[in-house]
Amino acid sequence: MAYLDQINTPEDLRKLPVSALPQLCDELRSFIIEQTAKHPGHLGSSLGVVELTVAIHYVFDTPNDKLVWDVGHQAYCHKILTGRKNLFHTNRCYQGISGFPRREESEYDAFGTGHSSTSISAALGMAMAAKMEGNMERNHIAVIGDGAMTGGMAFEAMNQAAYRDVNMMVILNDNKISIDQSTGAMSRYLLSITASPQYNRFKNRIWNIFTFKTKQSNRITRFFSGMGNGIKGYLLGGSNWFQSLGYRYFGPADGHDVIHLVKTLQALKALPGLKLFHVLTVKGKGLDMAEQNQTAYHAPGKFDPTTGQIIRQPQDQNLPPKFQDVFGHTILELAQQDEKVVGITPAMGTGCSLTIMNDVFPNRVFDVGIAEQHAVTFSAGLAAEGLIPFCNIYSSFFQRSYDQVIHDVALQKLPVIFCLDRAGLVGEDGATHQGVFDLAYLRAVPDLIISSPLNEHELRNLMVTAYHNAKQGGLPFVIRYPRGRGVLPDWHNEPGDIPIGKGQLLRQGEQIALITIGPIGNNVAQALDQLKEMNIHPTHVDMRFLKPIDETLLLSLADTHKTWITVEDGTEKGGLFSAVAEFLESHQLSNNLHHLAIPDRFISHGDIPHLYHEVGLDIENIKQTVEGLWIR
Amino acid sequence: MAYLDQINTPEDLRKLPVSALPQLCDELRSFIIEQTAKHPGHLGSSLGVVELTVAIHYVFDTPNDKLVWDVGHQAYCHKILTGRKNLFHTNRCYQGISGFPRREESEYDAFGTGHSSTSISAALGMAMAAKMEGNMERNHIAVIGDGAMTGGMAFEAMNQAAYRDVNMMVILNDNKISIDQSTGAMSRYLLSITASPQYNRFKNRIWNIFTFKTKQSNRITRFFSGMGNGIKGYLLGGSNWFQSLGYRYFGPADGHDVIHLVKTLQALKALPGLKLFHVLTVKGKGLDMAEQNQTAYHAPGKFDPTTGQIIRQPQDQNLPPKFQDVFGHTILELAQQDEKVVGITPAMGTGCSLTIMNDVFPNRVFDVGIAEQHAVTFSAGLAAEGLIPFCNIYSSFFQRSYDQVIHDVALQKLPVIFCLDRAGLVGEDGATHQGVFDLAYLRAVPDLIISSPLNEHELRNLMVTAYHNAKQGGLPFVIRYPRGRGVLPDWHNEPGDIPIGKGQLLRQGEQIALITIGPIGNNVAQALDQLKEMNIHPTHVDMRFLKPIDETLLLSLADTHKTWITVEDGTEKGGLFSAVAEFLESHQLSNNLHHLAIPDRFISHGDIPHLYHEVGLDIENIKQTVEGLWIR
Repeated sequence: MAYLDQINTPEDLRKLPVSALPQLCDELRSFIIEQTAKHPGHLGSSLGVVELTVAIHYVFDTPNDKLVWDVGHQAYCHKILTGRKNLFHTNRCYQGISGFPRREESEYDAFGTGHSSTSISAALGMAMAAKMEGNMERNHIAVIGDGAMTGGMAFEAMNQAAYRDVNMMVILNDNKISIDQSTGAMSRYLLSITASPQYNRFKNRIWNIFTFKTKQSNRITRFFSGMGNGIKGYLLGGSNWFQSLGYRYFGPADGHDVIHLVKTLQALKALPGLKLFHVLTVKGKGLDMAEQNQTAYHAPGKFDPTTGQIIRQPQDQNLPPKFQDVFGHTILELAQQDEKVVGITPAMGTGCSLTIMNDVFPNRVFDVGIAEQHAVTFSAGLAAEGLIPFCNIYSSFFQRSYDQVIHDVALQKLPVIFCLDRAGLVGEDGATHQGVFDLAYLRAVPDLIISSPLNEHELRNLMVTAYHNAKQGGLPFVIRYPRGRGVLPDWHNEPGDIPIGKGQLLRQGEQIALITIGPIGNNVAQALDQLKEMNIHPTHVDMRFLKPIDETLLLSLADTHKTWITVEDGTEKGGLFSAVAEFLESHQLSNNLHHLAIPDRFISHGDIPHLYHEVGLDIENIKQTVEGLWIR
Repeated sequence: MAYLDQINTPEDLRKLPVSALPQLCDELRSFIIEQTAKHPGHLGSSLGVVELTVAIHYVFDTPNDKLVWDVGHQAYCHKILTGRKNLFHTNRCYQGISGFPRREESEYDAFGTGHSSTSISAALGMAMAAKMEGNMERNHIAVIGDGAMTGGMAFEAMNQAAYRDVNMMVILNDNKISIDQSTGAMSRYLLSITASPQYNRFKNRIWNIFTFKTKQSNRITRFFSGMGNGIKGYLLGGSNWFQSLGYRYFGPADGHDVIHLVKTLQALKALPGLKLFHVLTVKGKGLDMAEQNQTAYHAPGKFDPTTGQIIRQPQDQNLPPKFQDVFGHTILELAQQDEKVVGITPAMGTGCSLTIMNDVFPNRVFDVGIAEQHAVTFSAGLAAEGLIPFCNIYSSFFQRSYDQVIHDVALQKLPVIFCLDRAGLVGEDGATHQGVFDLAYLRAVPDLIISSPLNEHELRNLMVTAYHNAKQGGLPFVIRYPRGRGVLPDWHNEPGDIPIGKGQLLRQGEQIALITIGPIGNNVAQALDQLKEMNIHPTHVDMRFLKPIDETLLLSLADTHKTWITVEDGTEKGGLFSAVAEFLESHQLSNNLHHLAIPDRFISHGDIPHLYHEVGLDIENIKQTVEGLWIR
C-alpha cells in the first residue's frame, strides 16, 4: 500500500500527484475488501464510490468545505481517508466506529445519516448558512444515489434549492440500484440519459477542456460560465428533468475514472452556484462477484477477499429461520389462497423477503422505490378497493410514514396490514436503524391494532389473524418483529387465528408477574428456566397485543401478583410499560410495577448480545431483576 | 338557481346540455359565496375549481370512476353536486358535514383527505386494484394543486405511477398559490409553461379537434393516440419535467372555460393509460376581492356575499392576541437582537405569523413550500452551521416530519427550535387537523425538550429560553401551543428564561393536585375559581415541560396530595398522563392518578366549545371531576 500507508487525512492525499490517484484507488479498494471480508459491512456501495470519494477530497477543502453523504453506507472510503484508517477494523463493532457518518465521530462527517434522501436538505441548510455570512466561497456537496433520489424528501429539497442562489453541488451517484434494483420513472429517465451518445461526448469534451488548461489558466472557468444557453443542446441535451427545475446539469461522467473526475470537479468547483453532477458508478466495483450480484453483496457478511466467495456458516439444519423468511413464506401461502393478497415494499424487497412472493406473483408485489410515505398511502388506496395489502417496512423507516398511518389509514379505518421488520435493537447498523420507537408512537394512534409475535408460529398466526381481520373489513393491523432468527427450527405450523387483543399465559407462577410483548419474551422464558432451579417461579404472560391491550388478563394478575415487571425491546417512554402503568392507574390498582425496556437515549451500534447487555434486556439482568424482587 | 335547483347528484348534472354548464357554474359560485359568507370555510380554493369540478362530474362516471381530491378544502362544489347541497349550511359545524372529503360521508368521496400531497398515491392504489381485476375501463382521477405537487410524497407517487401501466389522470390544478404564494423550482417551472405561447395554441388546437368530432367519431381518440413523438414539439413543448418522467402531458388549459374543459376531458377519457392534465385556475375566481387578495380569502371567515368585504368582529381592544401573533412578534424581537436567528416554515407563513418577521427580514425567513420533511432537515443543516432556526409547523403536519426529528435533529443533538402551532383541538378543520398526538409521539424521542406555555407570557419566556438554550448548543426544543387566542390582553411582557424542566406551582391547595401542561391549565384555573366558592381548594401545578419532566415538583406533591389529576389537550395514550403514571410507578408511589385528556379516538370537526365538552376538557367537566374526588 505504497500510497495509502502515507495517508491519514485528506491533507496527505492532496500532496499526491494526480497521476498517483489510480493506484491509490486500487489500494483503497483492496483495503476495503480485505477489511470488510473479515468485519462485515456495506461492501458494494463503498466499492462503488472509491474514485468519487478520492476525487472529492482531493479537489475540495474538506472539512472546511462540507461533504454530506446520503444514507451513508457508502462512506467507508471517506472514513479511511479522514483519520479512521487505523480504526477501520472496528467498523460497526460495539464501541468501534460507526458504519455511517456521525458528526460526533469526525469533523469530516458534516452530517450524520443512515436513512435515505436527507443529504440535499442538510447541505442546503449549510450552504444557506454560509451565504448568510456572505461566504460564497465555501463548497457544499451532497452525494446522493439514484435510489435515494426517489425519496420525496430529496425532491422537496431539490425544489427549494433551485430557487435559492447557493453554492451547492448535488452529485448524483447513479448505480441503478438501491439494495434491490432501482425502480420507477426517475430510474428509467436516468437510464435514458446514460444510454444516449451524451455520455461519451461529455467525457471527450471535458478532456479537451483540460488540454487547454495547461496553456491558459482560468480558461475552464470561462468555458463553463460562457456556455449559457448554448450548452443546452450539447452537454445538457438529455437532462430535461434537472434542467426544467433550474439545475445546471453536468454529466454523465464515468465514476471510475478518477483522473477525469478530479479534472471535472476542479472545473465545477470554479463554477459558483448550484449544479448537479451526474456520475455513473458500478456497485461492487473491483470485486467480480460483487459486481455480478449486487444485491447479495450490498452487505454480504464475511467473504473470501480474493475470490469474493461469501463464507456460509456451516448450516445447522436445526437453526431457526429468520423472521423475515417466515414472513416471506407466509405471505406467499396467503397469496396462493387469495388473489386479493398483495405485497408492498419501499425498496426493502430482499431485506424483508417479499422477494419470495415476488418470485411467484410478480404482478402482485409492488416495490415502490425508496418512498415510505407513498408506500403507505398507496396501500391505503389498494385497501379502499378491497385488496388485502401487506405493507412491509423496517421499523425505523416506518417513522417516515407516521402521518400517512394516521391520516390515510387509521383515520379511514382501512385494513392495511403493516409488517414492521427490524423492530427492536438491530445491532451493527446502530442508532439510526434501531426500531425502538414504534410501540410508543403507534400506541398513540386510534383505531390501530398493534401486535408482536413471541416466535415464528405466532408470527404466522398473527399474519393469518390480520388477513382474516382485513377480509372482514377490520381495523388496520401492525405486526412488528425483529431482525434475524427466531427460536423455532420447526417453524412451519398450521397457522390459526388469535383472538384480537388477547394475550396468553405462558407460565403460571406466583408473586411476580412478568408481562412481555414480542420475542423478548424468549429471553424472559430462559431467565425463568434458570430461576426455577433457585426455587423462584414467577408468572409470565405474553401480551401479544399492545393495542387493544388484554385488560382481562392483566386484571387476573392484580390480586395474585403484587409485583409486575414489563419487559419490551422498545423505549421505556410510551410503550408497554406506559400502557400497563396507565392500566394500573385507571383501575386504581396498587401493584408495584417495574420495567425493563430500552432506556430513553439513543443506542449506538454493536452486536446484539453487547447491546442487550447494555440496556439490561439480557437474560442475566432479567434474572437478577426478578431475583431482587422475589420475597423468600 | 334554475339549474342548480334541479341537481342533487352528478346523474342530474349529466342530463343538462353542455351549453347549460356556464350558467350552472355561475349558480354554484353564487351558492358557495352565499353559504360561505355565513358559514365560514375555505372559500378561495373552492371558487377556483367550480368549472373543473362540474366538468369532471359531467364527463366521468362518478362514483364508479374514482375522484380523489388532494388536500380537499377545494371540494365544496364537489360536495354540493354529490348529494350534500341541502346539508351544505352545516359545513364544518359540529355534527354537520366535514369541510374535507370523507369516505364515511359519501360514496363520491373516494378517499378522505386534509393533509397535502396524498392524492396520487391513493388514486394509484385504486387504479392498480382495478387493473388487477382486469378493469382498464374505470377512470381514476387525482386533482392536485401546484403547491401540493411540491410535497415529496406526490413525487414519490409520480415516480411509481409512471412506471406502471394504469388508467389514471393527474389533474394539476395550477393556481400559483398554496395558502401563501407557491415557491420553489416547480412553481417557477410551471410559470414558464404558462407564459409560453403554448397556452393559446393548446386551447385552439383542442377546439379544432372538436370541430372534427361532429364529422367523425373516434377521431379524437385516434388523434391523441397517433400523436406519438410528434406531439413533443407541439403540445408538449414546455413540459419537459413531466415528459422526462414518462407522463403524457396535456395543457395548460383555461380552468374557467367549462365547455373547453368538458371537451378536453372527454378526449382524455378516451385515451387510456396514464396522463397529466395541466389546468390553470384562479384562486377565489368570481369574487373580486378574493381574486385580489388570495391569501386573506383562503379562509376569510364571515364576509359580505355581495362586496366580498370581510366582516371584522367589533374589536374589543382588550381581546387577547392569537398565539401565532405572539410567536410572530417574539421571533422578530429575537431576530432583531441576533442575526443568527432564522425562521423556517413549510408553506404556513401566514398561518403561523412568520410573515411578521418576513416583512422585516425577508432574507432570514424560508418558506420551503409544502415540504415538512425537508423543512426539518434543512433546519438541522442551518443549526449545524451555528444558526438558530425556529421551525414553525402545525402540530398535525409535524407528524410528517417525525423521522427527520428523530434521525436528523435529536440523534445529532442539533439545537433546532420547533414551534408547533395548532396543537390540541383545532375545531372546524376536524379530524385530520387535530394536533393531539404530538405530546405522545415526541415524548418517545430521546434528547428532545418538550414544552407548552400556559399563556402568552409563557410562550415568550419559552421562546427566549429555547433561544438561549440553542445559543449554548443545547438540545432541540419543542414549544407547542394552540390555534387561536390566548388569555392575556396585556401579552407583551419582558420575556425571561425559564429553568428547563421546571414546572410552577400555580395554586397551593390540598387533597387533590391538578397537574396540567399548556393553555388547558387556564380551564383548570377557572374551574378551581368556581370550586373555591364551594370550599373545594385543590392544588394546581403547571408542568410547562413534558420532557424533562419536573420530578422534584411531582415528588413534592406525593405525600401531601393523595389524589392527582392530569389534564392535557392531547391523547390519553402516551402523553402527560402516561408520563406521570410512569413516574408514580417508577417511584413506587401509591397516589391515585386520574386523567382528563383526549380520548383514544379520532375527534371530528366542530366549534371548540362543543369539542371540549365532548372530550370532557371543558370547565364544567373539570369542575365536576374535582368535586367528585374531593373528600369533605
